[in-house]
Amino acid sequence: MKRAYNFNAGPSALPLPVLERAQSELLNFQNTGMSVMELSHRSKEYDAVHNSAKERLKRLMNIPDTHDVLFLQGGASLQFSMVPMNFLSKGKIGNYVLTGSWSEKALKEAKKVGSTHIAASSKEANYTYIPKFEDIQLSEDAAYLHITSNNTIFGTQWREFPNVPVDLVADMSSDILSREINVGQFALIYAGAQKNLGPSGVTVVIIRNDLLERIPDNLPTMLDYRTYSQSNSLYNTPPTFAIYMLSLVLEWVEAEGGVKAIEARNQEKAAIVYAAIDASNGFYAPHAEKESRSLMNVTFTLPNEELTKKFLEEAKEKGFVGLAGHRSVGGCRASIYNAVPLEACEALAAFMDDFRRRFA
Amino acid sequence: MKRAYNFNAGPSALPLPVLERAQSELLNFQNTGMSVMELSHRSKEYDAVHNSAKERLKRLMNIPDTHDVLFLQGGASLQFSMVPMNFLSKGKIGNYVLTGSWSEKALKEAKKVGSTHIAASSKEANYTYIPKFEDIQLSEDAAYLHITSNNTIFGTQWREFPNVPVDLVADMSSDILSREINVGQFALIYAGAQKNLGPSGVTVVIIRNDLLERIPDNLPTMLDYRTYSQSNSLYNTPPTFAIYMLSLVLEWVEAEGGVKAIEARNQEKAAIVYAAIDASNGFYAPHAEKESRSLMNVTFTLPNEELTKKFLEEAKEKGFVGLAGHRSVGGCRASIYNAVPLEACEALAAFMDDFRRRFA
Ligand SMILES: Cc1ncc(COP(=O)(O)O)c(C=O)c1O
Ligand SMILES: Cc1ncc(COP(=O)(O)O)c(C=O)c1O
Ligand SMILES: [Mg+2]
Ligand SMILES: [Mg+2]
Ligand SMILES: [Mg+2]
Ligand SMILES: [Mg+2]
Repeated sequence: MKRAYNFNAGPSALPLPVLERAQSELLNFQNTGMSVMELSHRSKEYDAVHNSAKERLKRLMNIPDTHDVLFLQGGASLQFSMVPMNFLSKGKIGNYVLTGSWSEKALKEAKKVGSTHIAASSKEANYTYIPKFEDIQLSEDAAYLHITSNNTIFGTQWREFPNVPVDLVADMSSDILSREINVGQFALIYAGAQKNLGPSGVTVVIIRNDLLERIPDNLPTMLDYRTYSQSNSLYNTPPTFAIYMLSLVLEWVEAEGGVKAIEARNQEKAAIVYAAIDASNGFYAPHAEKESRSLMNVTFTLPNEELTKKFLEEAKEKGFVGLAGHRSVGGCRASIYNAVPLEACEALAAFMDDFRRRFA
Repeated sequence: MKRAYNFNAGPSALPLPVLERAQSELLNFQNTGMSVMELSHRSKEYDAVHNSAKERLKRLMNIPDTHDVLFLQGGASLQFSMVPMNFLSKGKIGNYVLTGSWSEKALKEAKKVGSTHIAASSKEANYTYIPKFEDIQLSEDAAYLHITSNNTIFGTQWREFPNVPVDLVADMSSDILSREINVGQFALIYAGAQKNLGPSGVTVVIIRNDLLERIPDNLPTMLDYRTYSQSNSLYNTPPTFAIYMLSLVLEWVEAEGGVKAIEARNQEKAAIVYAAIDASNGFYAPHAEKESRSLMNVTFTLPNEELTKKFLEEAKEKGFVGLAGHRSVGGCRASIYNAVPLEACEALAAFMDDFRRRFA
């Protein structure tokens, strides 16, 4: 069976060698006579998996010693609440930049916890761009500034990150590990694994250690970042198989040459798909403004609903998966995360060209 | 490679046919050209998996239409907080029966949320027994009565459940699906999957629908049971692979003849191990009183530390895994969940007899 051209927005494509490795050892992990899923989370074999995932991520992202890596459950959506529960204390104001649906959801959860302020927003333009640094207006007594580094639904992405005089918190669910970043610039980064890191079921949090001192007492244990930091994310049973898959994906990124090499390939891949859009004379209309384009999620519309439907149907027949836009915005979206091969992007661009020639 | 005799307390043994099935389709799920991990959680293929897990559990446990099945993340430990956050309103009192470490942890989290009352406890006897129904003293204005149906660490288990005039909430993490129960007797049941249901990473909640009407507004979205009930547990990205494994385990339980057949085998398995204890003339001293013995976790001590160490070392050499007692209590523990074969229990009992003859 041929592998599908998988453009799913998450859960999404995983590297084939990772799946093959997982398959080969699924019944017998390292001669234990057990599946990795059957190992105790307190066993030395699982501990090695757990720590390898953590250490590899530290190496790959160049995470400084000031920061710790935590593994949680609940998805990025639970982080929308955990960030304010841990850091939005009375008298402080949670600052949010709105760049899409996920930022809005993050803000909505923060409002349940404390005071908030919209520091910048492109909502009035239907989230077609990332606000300029100079348009970010922080409130007094800001607890933090929260941004969404990549907007999975609208297809925009921060090129660079603002240097602000408050702690910067980023939802990097859909572009973590896709490009080199300076982790030291962030107080806290979170990401659901199901785009660039592995399967769904584990959430990665990278946190600057001094933030832990600010956490109020009496939070529910499982919602207190200190629980994870003090136990090496082993306070209760972690999602062991998801963390195992994460460790394999990180091993694969290393074998591919690290984040720098992945970033170069991501640029190449995105360039191929955007070229098909730009060469289409408006047949494929990109949602995002040029300078805000995402390298991860390419969003575009066709001239009308009928053509969109036809495009998606033909694409499906040809083995392209996941090209429908998010149900909240419609149109088309190609998610081209780390594990999507260059070849899939070439095939998509070729199909787009061909379709356009026939229907423009 | 021979399969280990896996007596882990959780994550724990999975049925071999389930692992083989997962392995065989890991790279190509139902001719999609994708792994089940690579499917969108909004795809029709994943939807079928998700609903099959839900429907099978309903059938197997005979769950009445008054109740719904939800899939969450965060483990049973997050349920310790979610239960009081959702149901312990002001003026009400959360009632807890203490039968072990997990009940204590549940109570500790409830105390952070509201008022609590210990309705019964066997703590004074180091949790060697389950309190009698007549010793359960409910408070005024009880919000619910919380029990731990099986005490994984101490090795005790409720044989039957009390008929109380308040909503009964049960942590069934370590014995769900091991025996026939009357779900209608419970307002809410929760269980981390990693003992009888699948790998870690998904938590099952069975909830009586009318309870949803009592949930306060303004809870964090991910901590509000209504979020899961209203979205068929698809509000955000669920742990798709863990739910897939759950569906396969449930299929296996059906193939084995359902819960009735599993229960009969569990009784047989436990009888074999307890017989080795009872025939040992006190060499193996059971922790639990006879009428409170767990069919899932058999706990016992040897005459001294040295013999315990020797026992565990020899056991390990012979391919027995996970027999050390929980780090908080020491001694030995054999967890014999649904997927542990009868043969493993026979092998353990034979080893126990042999060891005793040599060292008693
Ligand atoms: C940027 C971003 N944030 C948050 C989420 C929500 O993640 P989860 O489903 O893990 O809660 C998503 C999901 O696609 C996302 O793309
Ligand atoms: C009865 C019981 N409750 C709760 C827990 C905690 O479960 P989790 O690790 O999924 O949070 C366990 C774990 O072994 C358990 O046995
Ligand atoms: Mg998730
Ligand atoms: Mg978005
Ligand atoms: Mg769990
Ligand atoms: Mg216990």
